[in-house]
Amino acid sequence: MLTRTEHLFDEATRVRAGDSRWHGRTSPDYWAFVGPFGGITAATILRALMEHADRAGDPVSLTVNYCAAVVEGEFDLDLRLVRANRSSQHWAVELTQRDAVMVLATAVFAERRPSWSQTVAAFPQAPPFETIPPYTKVTVPWVKQYDFRFVEGEPKLGGADKTPGSTTSKFWIADRVPRPIDMPALTAMSDAFFARIFHARRELVPFGTVSLTTYFHSSVEELKAENITRALGAADAKIFHRSYGDQSGELWSPNGRLLASTTQITYFKA
Amino acid sequence: MLTRTEHLFDEATRVRAGDSRWHGRTSPDYWAFVGPFGGITAATILRALMEHADRAGDPVSLTVNYCAAVVEGEFDLDLRLVRANRSSQHWAVELTQRDAVMVLATAVFAERRPSWSQTVAAFPQAPPFETIPPYTKVTVPWVKQYDFRFVEGEPKLGGADKTPGSTTSKFWIADRVPRPIDMPALTAMSDAFFARIFHARRELVPFGTVSLTTYFHSSVEELKAENITRALGAADAKIFHRSYGDQSGELWSPNGRLLASTTQITYFKA
Repeated sequence: MLTRTEHLFDEATRVRAGDSRWHGRTSPDYWAFVGPFGGITAATILRALMEHADRAGDPVSLTVNYCAAVVEGEFDLDLRLVRANRSSQHWAVELTQRDAVMVLATAVFAERRPSWSQTVAAFPQAPPFETIPPYTKVTVPWVKQYDFRFVEGEPKLGGADKTPGSTTSKFWIADRVPRPIDMPALTAMSDAFFARIFHARRELVPFGTVSLTTYFHSSVEELKAENITRALGAADAKIFHRSYGDQSGELWSPNGRLLASTTQITYFKA
Repeated sequence: MLTRTEHLFDEATRVRAGDSRWHGRTSPDYWAFVGPFGGITAATILRALMEHADRAGDPVSLTVNYCAAVVEGEFDLDLRLVRANRSSQHWAVELTQRDAVMVLATAVFAERRPSWSQTVAAFPQAPPFETIPPYTKVTVPWVKQYDFRFVEGEPKLGGADKTPGSTTSKFWIADRVPRPIDMPALTAMSDAFFARIFHARRELVPFGTVSLTTYFHSSVEELKAENITRALGAADAKIFHRSYGDQSGELWSPNGRLLASTTQITYFKA
């Protein structure tokens, strides 16, 4: 089933406020290999923060440390406003299951005052979404919730070629059932770049995101005004070494606005 | 004075273990505009973690959120091992002054097992350190603790040219009094890329690092084996918008090894 009354993304990221902790439930729709898709967990945390009564300002940065694989079922969220300044807030979040910390996160919210503005990074030119066939080779649940259309660097796994593959990718990404891109969606998409180690090794290997950092480059209002259901993503990596590697990415509006940049450190076994 | 019995860096990053909290003191030698150089604060946190009796493994990632300007004098560090797995550890750190949180950090330590290895990023070619004159135009205390030698993208501030400047820099960085580069040194250097907004605007503007993330790409042992007192840095930015901008950097061993990559989100007023 691809949609219910509400969008699966909204169902998957929903939490309810409790007395001191918030509560949520993992979604089978966004399952990865050994736990939920890291992006949906990050999006759940960001959404909970945005819905918190004490939240002021727009998300500026989010760092999510995946301490252990979240298991299927209920989880608690502890959302703590560590410091509030005149125009910014610092939050700490713990996602626990049976009182064990599974995910540790920090976030910064701030009033995005008008300022001098310049985009240094180059908009990744790409043919229109409609002209590219969807990528359907990976059938992991969370991947099926997205419509990936590769402009370059589509993962080519399991072939005869064993030389290191390119770690660069450029692609369109949309929710499989179209949904306007808001901050939680952007958060999830910032973890939706396939593991660069799969590209480099040209095969699936044991892999996990250890820490994900996403910076938001527009205000909530600006993102809403973009009125988009698709983003253009670009991803690359710098190094794989001693069981850990990095990767980074950009998410652009089709209108040419840089919406988010992201980086992560990952574990791999190869 | 540029050195005492111990290196100023070691003095500036020293903390002592208390009953439940650790204690430290800001150093005038690494002062910035309105507080300590963010890099020395990050290095102090990393060093405290490395010296913690419960620490196991090598630093993999560190995220430091600067909640408020640390004021001159004593501070407390609360170091909390949030989750320990078989081969990795997740830490949360709070730096407080009079019980107010000034800095919030998370770190991941892990056993760096041998693995397949590949460096994707290109080593930034540069003429030898000795052939480049030191950069002496900025006299802020922390800057004077380093020997910067610009290969390209030296900050050119206050000239007649008001067009946006390039945000790319490439430079050698060494402690002014040579000191072998260890993980705390690398941490400090990861925040030593001058604010990209100064380059873009060609002037000093009010600026502060909001959140700094550094990934370590070698083991402690490998870094020690490099036996270096200088690193080659490369920095750039993607965007400045609505009072916040990003920047990212790489720190390389002169021997060609990528030691660390880093990114930060910054506040600016322009």
